Amino acid sequence: MQRVHEIDLETLDALGRGCAVLGTGGGGDVAAPLIAAAHAIRTRGPVPIVQLSDLPNDALIAPLSGIGAPTVSVEMLPGQSEVHRLREAAERFMGGPLSAVMSSEIGGSNGVEPLLWASLLGLPIVDADGMGRAFPEVQMVSMNVAGLPVNVVIVADLAGNVTTIQPIDGDWSERIARAACVAGGASALMADYILTAEQARGAVIEGSVSHAVHLGQSTVGAADPLEALRSELDARVLISGKIVDIERRTGGGFVRGSVVVEEIGGAGRLTRVEIQNENLAVFEDGEVLASVPDLISVVDTQTASAISTESLRYGQRVSVLAWPCHPLWRTDRGLTIAGPRAFGYAIDYVPVEKIGSSVV
Amino acid sequence: MQRVHEIDLETLDALGRGCAVLGTGGGGDVAAPLIAAAHAIRTRGPVPIVQLSDLPNDALIAPLSGIGAPTVSVEMLPGQSEVHRLREAAERFMGGPLSAVMSSEIGGSNGVEPLLWASLLGLPIVDADGMGRAFPEVQMVSMNVAGLPVNVVIVADLAGNVTTIQPIDGDWSERIARAACVAGGASALMADYILTAEQARGAVIEGSVSHAVHLGQSTVGAADPLEALRSELDARVLISGKIVDIERRTGGGFVRGSVVVEEIGGAGRLTRVEIQNENLAVFEDGEVLASVPDLISVVDTQTASAISTESLRYGQRVSVLAWPCHPLWRTDRGLTIAGPRAFGYAIDYVPVEKIGSSVV
Repeated sequence: MQRVHEIDLETLDALGRGCAVLGTGGGGDVAAPLIAAAHAIRTRGPVPIVQLSDLPNDALIAPLSGIGAPTVSVEMLPGQSEVHRLREAAERFMGGPLSAVMSSEIGGSNGVEPLLWASLLGLPIVDADGMGRAFPEVQMVSMNVAGLPVNVVIVADLAGNVTTIQPIDGDWSERIARAACVAGGASALMADYILTAEQARGAVIEGSVSHAVHLGQSTVGAADPLEALRSELDARVLISGKIVDIERRTGGGFVRGSVVVEEIGGAGRLTRVEIQNENLAVFEDGEVLASVPDLISVVDTQTASAISTESLRYGQRVSVLAWPCHPLWRTDRGLTIAGPRAFGYAIDYVPVEKIGSSVV
Repeated sequence: MQRVHEIDLETLDALGRGCAVLGTGGGGDVAAPLIAAAHAIRTRGPVPIVQLSDLPNDALIAPLSGIGAPTVSVEMLPGQSEVHRLREAAERFMGGPLSAVMSSEIGGSNGVEPLLWASLLGLPIVDADGMGRAFPEVQMVSMNVAGLPVNVVIVADLAGNVTTIQPIDGDWSERIARAACVAGGASALMADYILTAEQARGAVIEGSVSHAVHLGQSTVGAADPLEALRSELDARVLISGKIVDIERRTGGGFVRGSVVVEEIGGAGRLTRVEIQNENLAVFEDGEVLASVPDLISVVDTQTASAISTESLRYGQRVSVLAWPCHPLWRTDRGLTIAGPRAFGYAIDYVPVEKIGSSVV
């Protein structure tokens, strides 16, 4: 895969489309962050993208993301000052300057907002992320899967408070960071770990930014955008139809719910997509069609644009795509951290490409 | 008042009795901390008490306390390792070593536990505190009343997590520290501010440790312990009677409830003491007999030993004492932070010594 070297206004749009698909419904809507990032690029120029191999071993990387309920963050513009407060706390804690930022999760707004944060800080972005997708909880990052102890989690909320957490493990980082986030208004900026480049090697998913850009570029101008996207992802189309039922609630810092899609022009098949910020699993007649950690995206059938979970509406014509996750998530530890049972489903994980043959 | 220079096993007992009275029902039960502090003194010797005026201007003081619901902490022994983790985080944050610890609240267990923490750290205790009593919330400290911006709040929980909060003000410090405490098991060690000795002058209540010791000594061997305590405090005895009703629940990190005391051998008067960790107000026939920030203590009528809110039981023979708070709490800002309205009572504060004449 060809790597991108910077994000300018043109590649920004492709990045946004790609991140929305990789968001698997979560990670926050990309619309507002795209506006903020475009403004940043117009003001201060393109944002440099660096490869991990370009950084010295001791360079400090801050993996950043928003934390909170997308239903809250979609109604708020990204703030300009949290990232400065977060940097100050990070550098104070680490005793040295940050060299680069990284997207903690490439999926959704969290793949786009680092452009704003990097631009504001005058730092490059590492062409990597901590998920290769989006996940709803703090401990669900590749660094944790790779066994790297979490040295620090920093939460900078919109009110101006900064909370620096030294958790004993990833599960505790989720509990305390979530509590700090909810106390601070259910939407905040977070650094999950501060890594040296040396620690990051093998513990992050490299090439994520470039991948998102290529994904976004694949559908632009395509005769059949859905097929172009399916092909680029090597995904399955689990169903194409209409949203006929939707249930969604916000609480404890999460959006949870489910959506039912009825096939159009077929035998009236019904599939149910279950959600905790992200699309977690797809069921049909009690059978699993796909589940975490594999990626599940609900896209507009005509344009192949991904639809985030908080933007799903009754009557939308959608297609549900599923495709394999990064191999790291299929390890025993990866499945313990983000497999179906980590989300309360009493089912074993089966790789999406190996599930039945009843689907398209 | 004569100042004490160290706490040994003998003064420890008096300190415990005095802190229980100043706890106004809260700040945690002193029994378990007294055992832990006695063990520490037997192992490492008496704990030195220093006056603020003895410290250089730039000496760093950590005001420490437990945070959480007394109903939880009463069932747990004080931990030995949180204080080391907290010190490490404090010194990392401040960029220099701590010179002394201080009790954030002299009332209840929080007046006794600093002995254990100081002993473990090999540091002296400053003869001062941040309340002159106990209060249930993080922002209710003299440093906040004095207008000192809260630079940092550090919460070290029993699981081993350390959370360093840079709040924008006292109210936010309460929200986020409470959330971190509840997430970490509803009982934790906290530093509320890290102060230089220069900042502490005028912003803390001096002489608190000595005051608690003298208070505890006043009742030992007295012919009439209740009268000895009342006289030492210059307190009013609002009622002497029997607990005939009690309601208490634990939630959100607090104990809340009320207790009704019926007069014995009198006209059958009933008074109600309302509680949020501490005794907040005393009512009789809809009239206020005393309220925060003045001090209200429920004591055993025979021994004058204070009874903490979580130890109140049906049928206990008790007396309810009330006496004036430190003048700092009677300023406009003091009453805004910890007057009746700060606890949700739609009543104006009247100094306890000026309320009616119907009481003894």
